[in-house]
Amino acid sequence: MALIVHKYGGTSVGSVERIKNVARRLAKWQRAGHQLVVVVSAMSGETNRLIALAKDIQASPDPRELDVVASTGEQVTIGLMAMALKDLGLKAKSYTGWQVHVLTDSAFTKARIVEIDEKKIRADLSAGNIVVVAGFQGADEFGNVTTLGRGGSDTSAVALAAALKADECLIYTDVDGVYTTDPRIVPEARRLSTVTFEEMLEMASLGSKVLQIRSVEFAGKYRVKLRVLSSLTDAEVPLEEEAGSGTLITFEEDTVMEKAVISGIAFTRDEAKITLTRVPDRPGIAYQILGAIAEANIDVDMIVQNISVEGMTDFSFTVARSEYARAMDVLNTKVKDHIGATNIIGDPKICKVSVVGIGMRSHVGIASQMFRTLSEEGINIQMITTSEIKISVVIDDKYLELAVRALHKAFGLEHEPA
Amino acid sequence: MALIVHKYGGTSVGSVERIKNVARRLAKWQRAGHQLVVVVSAMSGETNRLIALAKDIQASPDPRELDVVASTGEQVTIGLMAMALKDLGLKAKSYTGWQVHVLTDSAFTKARIVEIDEKKIRADLSAGNIVVVAGFQGADEFGNVTTLGRGGSDTSAVALAAALKADECLIYTDVDGVYTTDPRIVPEARRLSTVTFEEMLEMASLGSKVLQIRSVEFAGKYRVKLRVLSSLTDAEVPLEEEAGSGTLITFEEDTVMEKAVISGIAFTRDEAKITLTRVPDRPGIAYQILGAIAEANIDVDMIVQNISVEGMTDFSFTVARSEYARAMDVLNTKVKDHIGATNIIGDPKICKVSVVGIGMRSHVGIASQMFRTLSEEGINIQMITTSEIKISVVIDDKYLELAVRALHKAFGLEHEPA
Repeated sequence: MALIVHKYGGTSVGSVERIKNVARRLAKWQRAGHQLVVVVSAMSGETNRLIALAKDIQASPDPRELDVVASTGEQVTIGLMAMALKDLGLKAKSYTGWQVHVLTDSAFTKARIVEIDEKKIRADLSAGNIVVVAGFQGADEFGNVTTLGRGGSDTSAVALAAALKADECLIYTDVDGVYTTDPRIVPEARRLSTVTFEEMLEMASLGSKVLQIRSVEFAGKYRVKLRVLSSLTDAEVPLEEEAGSGTLITFEEDTVMEKAVISGIAFTRDEAKITLTRVPDRPGIAYQILGAIAEANIDVDMIVQNISVEGMTDFSFTVARSEYARAMDVLNTKVKDHIGATNIIGDPKICKVSVVGIGMRSHVGIASQMFRTLSEEGINIQMITTSEIKISVVIDDKYLELAVRALHKAFGLEHEPA
Repeated sequence: MALIVHKYGGTSVGSVERIKNVARRLAKWQRAGHQLVVVVSAMSGETNRLIALAKDIQASPDPRELDVVASTGEQVTIGLMAMALKDLGLKAKSYTGWQVHVLTDSAFTKARIVEIDEKKIRADLSAGNIVVVAGFQGADEFGNVTTLGRGGSDTSAVALAAALKADECLIYTDVDGVYTTDPRIVPEARRLSTVTFEEMLEMASLGSKVLQIRSVEFAGKYRVKLRVLSSLTDAEVPLEEEAGSGTLITFEEDTVMEKAVISGIAFTRDEAKITLTRVPDRPGIAYQILGAIAEANIDVDMIVQNISVEGMTDFSFTVARSEYARAMDVLNTKVKDHIGATNIIGDPKICKVSVVGIGMRSHVGIASQMFRTLSEEGINIQMITTSEIKISVVIDDKYLELAVRALHKAFGLEHEPA
């Protein structure tokens, strides 16, 4: 007997029929003798409906009150899921975040989990219940309702698995695992049976969108065994088959020996690039530029600064394309003259392509193979950044698909590693 | 400065515009220097939507889980209302039932309030907040979410007013007060400026439907000054005008001196009458009949049994017309032969008309005037029951409007009492 946490997102519980399908799936797991905790999101579309309602009332909704409203979506799902389980003759009990003491800080709309009191859940599990917990929400030390931000249900599930020392945390979603790249661009893309936490972090932040980044960090910190698998399969698939499906996210130490050098090609569309040319290279200059951008609440992704020539340097960074105009405005009005930059050059039509792999650490030549592949396709590289397990390049937006396909083939990702 | 509890039902908060109108109304009361607690229902239609969703999952939804789902409707409204108040630049804070410790028993879907801890609310009021509380809901001693049953928001408001020792509890609704009878039947029907709790209880149970009965009982028990008034008037009506509008529900002692003998004519449509003839008049016979009916979960309204003749009596009672067939079935299959009744006679087309008035206690002749009036209209009286402040008759359904109009005129209800 194992203690397993299941998590189902909005699409997986998006209708009465789907909720019933999830209940049948849980019944199968319980029949196999497992103790089950289920974390659910709001039914798809519900959170957006609630936020739209709030914005009709107040253009910038008060964060505390927005959480009061938004958290009701998950509360509806837990009640419905418990009913669906009872309808199958199973014992079940639902809990909101505050009812199982998912204690968070008071950062409304983006709270962080501080602690979970798992006593109530353990008692219910021992009594034979399937315990259904609302994802995305908690309460602060004063009893205020908080939410964890978009995708927070993944984090709720991992945090519960950590608190309960669960044997595995299964994240059921509408894709069936983590792929070497997006199959819509490269039909030969292969599902990875395992991926390390560090790779997953890089993949997630680069647009794979399978899991919320914070949940992966959390899983890494508390060593939670995490698996991403499909909720859209028939609930009657044999348990052994389902239990090994999807992608297992593991600790580097366990698996690095058998890993391929490169795990996947990640990418982000809809980015924009901004360069300030001939900026005086003096201490504090980066802060003066990015401080103004941060104050305007604009997220910056890549940042590149090369060595200076004659006391002058070029400073580049990328932002989401939707923030491009605003970022340019901030720089032109608040930064340019102040720091004495010669010019501000922007390009709103770029994308980022990254090669990710834990094996990169111990293999030379990955970067040069990447650059050669792109060069052979006639794709110009505009910016480069690297981390321990990732090399990212900025290229013209129009070459995105070509670059991803060429790199996927060049690194042989369509084949299982030998 | 007074402490006032406002309560707004589902229709009054049924749209973004109406929520904003309520916020402007509250702003007006706060400008006048009052401390305000606002109890709100779910937006109209929302509770029905949630219950329908639950029934799609489980034909008879589990009561605990149904409360988890149904209570979200009010939670959405409190958040939106607090936002609307903040949008006007006011200080506001929302609370669910469990957040202000509306402690109830564990009778899910029809819980009763045991206690309210008003400390948090008092502190917020002192800090200048308008406090918005979710009606209809609470939590039991184990932290389970409970709801008070349909119309429970009225009870929440009165209970809060009692706990806070509020100066007045204003129930804003889509009618502008309590009338001498239904204005759709008698155009001359007059709004009562005051009505006693006891009269209100009789009016409410007889179909006036302005207030939930339990809230009136609660108000009586804790001496809460209760006023029913319209939420559909413009929020900018001068406060003095609004504050005296509607109908004030008072304690008998305070006002009986100035009261008319009769306050109103109440009625219930869609009733059915059942008589068991020549029942042996022995102890336990009423229980044997009504026990079987209660077991089938059928509510009984009037019960009439006259003295026995030759050891035999006739036993009559009324039920909702929708329960008529089921009640007849129970009697024929489970009761008739068992108790040795001669016959069971039913009439599914009757109605009940009542004359209600606290002054009746000290005035003779009300009953005879009522019976004479009906007789003059050629209306046959089928059953009669009386209480201290009410006389009810059962008549043929088709005479309902005629009887109500004739009685309203006979008791001079179109005129203010002298």
